[in-house]
Amino acid sequence: MTDWTEQTATARNWFESLRDRICAEFEAIEREAGSDATFAYTSWDRETEDGSDGGGGVQGKMLGKVFEKVGVNVSTVSGAFSSAFAAQVNGASEEEPHFTATGISLVAHMANPHVPAVHMNTRFLTTQKAWFGGGADLNPPIEYKEDTDAFHARLRAACAAHNPTYYERFSKWADEYFFIPHRGVHRGVGGIFYDHLECEDTATFDRHFAFTKDVGEAFLDAFPAIVRHRMGMEWSEEEKALQREWRGRYVEFNLVYDRGTLFGLKTGGNIDAILMSLPPEVTWG
Amino acid sequence: MTDWTEQTATARNWFESLRDRICAEFEAIEREAGSDATFAYTSWDRETEDGSDGGGGVQGKMLGKVFEKVGVNVSTVSGAFSSAFAAQVNGASEEEPHFTATGISLVAHMANPHVPAVHMNTRFLTTQKAWFGGGADLNPPIEYKEDTDAFHARLRAACAAHNPTYYERFSKWADEYFFIPHRGVHRGVGGIFYDHLECEDTATFDRHFAFTKDVGEAFLDAFPAIVRHRMGMEWSEEEKALQREWRGRYVEFNLVYDRGTLFGLKTGGNIDAILMSLPPEVTWG
Repeated sequence: MTDWTEQTATARNWFESLRDRICAEFEAIEREAGSDATFAYTSWDRETEDGSDGGGGVQGKMLGKVFEKVGVNVSTVSGAFSSAFAAQVNGASEEEPHFTATGISLVAHMANPHVPAVHMNTRFLTTQKAWFGGGADLNPPIEYKEDTDAFHARLRAACAAHNPTYYERFSKWADEYFFIPHRGVHRGVGGIFYDHLECEDTATFDRHFAFTKDVGEAFLDAFPAIVRHRMGMEWSEEEKALQREWRGRYVEFNLVYDRGTLFGLKTGGNIDAILMSLPPEVTWG
Repeated sequence: MTDWTEQTATARNWFESLRDRICAEFEAIEREAGSDATFAYTSWDRETEDGSDGGGGVQGKMLGKVFEKVGVNVSTVSGAFSSAFAAQVNGASEEEPHFTATGISLVAHMANPHVPAVHMNTRFLTTQKAWFGGGADLNPPIEYKEDTDAFHARLRAACAAHNPTYYERFSKWADEYFFIPHRGVHRGVGGIFYDHLECEDTATFDRHFAFTKDVGEAFLDAFPAIVRHRMGMEWSEEEKALQREWRGRYVEFNLVYDRGTLFGLKTGGNIDAILMSLPPEVTWG
């Protein structure tokens, strides 16, 4: 099976509807905190060398009272990899360099250092193969074991509903991936990371898509609850300073190691959308 | 000629004395601004796998009133490259992986957005070959053509005293090197960048060392003058915000592209010394 047009559209619709629900929930949290902040949306088109339609995306960004800076991007792009790059991608080659990709990507940096920052991304890619990937990880400047446990428990439940091995494999993968070798520390307290859930036919697509949807639902269930639980806490200037310093590790991870960021920067992606993951205020002491 | 022990010691002494003069000058500037900030020095030893002496360095850092954050490192290290890495280094190989390196590295981030940030580095390396490299570049958040011209003119004079082609070649090299492809912008207004000034014998060592010393003298001559000229200017909160945002480009360059930074991070260098180049306060809007 090589025509995934319909499935790509189905996945895209889901990512867009998930985005709408997440953004509505985050805006509701802002209102509960007495703020009228809302998301601003910016569309962008992917530029291609030959001027053909390369797709594009919509970048949503909110600078709020609770969400100091949150970006939610949905993009759906297609084209042909350069021959040098095609050889490195699952199911692509110099002869068959075509790809499509649709996905949602979210990073939230919070005003209150007691509220964890968070990242979530899920995606569906096709070359001569087709697969889902994604993940979510929690990044508290000041950790509360209760929040870490709640986040993991909800992801564990989402995994367990689909495959008894998923949580163990994917949480371990997150621990390995979200690690900063030059500091010898993890960037946060983990979550899950998965890739190459390959779709051989519509039945496997349906199965992996169902799991990917449940990862999105788990995020939407778990994270706003943590935010509401912590957002009222008082914080000191010292704790805010600690958060700004801690965000430096997040920047170091994303710019030195994160595959998605480097892939985007080095292949001419939309800079604002790629770098929306960077924190609003950072210090290196 | 393969024994550069004496020359390495000579170069090291010079780098250390240059460091002392630069730090004294920067502290004098702080006093002129009514601050009693001084450099704090921290020694570090390079760790080696087999526990042999790998050398080390001294990191000098000052958080001042004029110099919001300035780091000046002198390091002198030696050892053997891993076999995978040795093949990539000038004059090294799996059979001959030994190296020594001594150098000074300086990055200053200024409180006043009208005063440019600056970077300067010069170094002497030996493998089976021996060579000097270095450079300096100016990074104004708000550019004054007069400062840019003064900085370049002083470097041009240092170059011209040694070789009529140096300034053109090395300023062009700086323009190519200090460039951020994903933004399509230079990180600053340039300066000079040079590498592989190879020493075949003591006569060529003396010549390239003389040039490298003059680059240090040019820096010490040009930069403090620019600081004194601009440090009294008033600045607005908007200009400070522009500086913090502009520093994001500096971080992106150093973490995504700078060879020295990535080399250090990925080969277990001293993290604090390597990342002292990162600005004290940064924002990504």
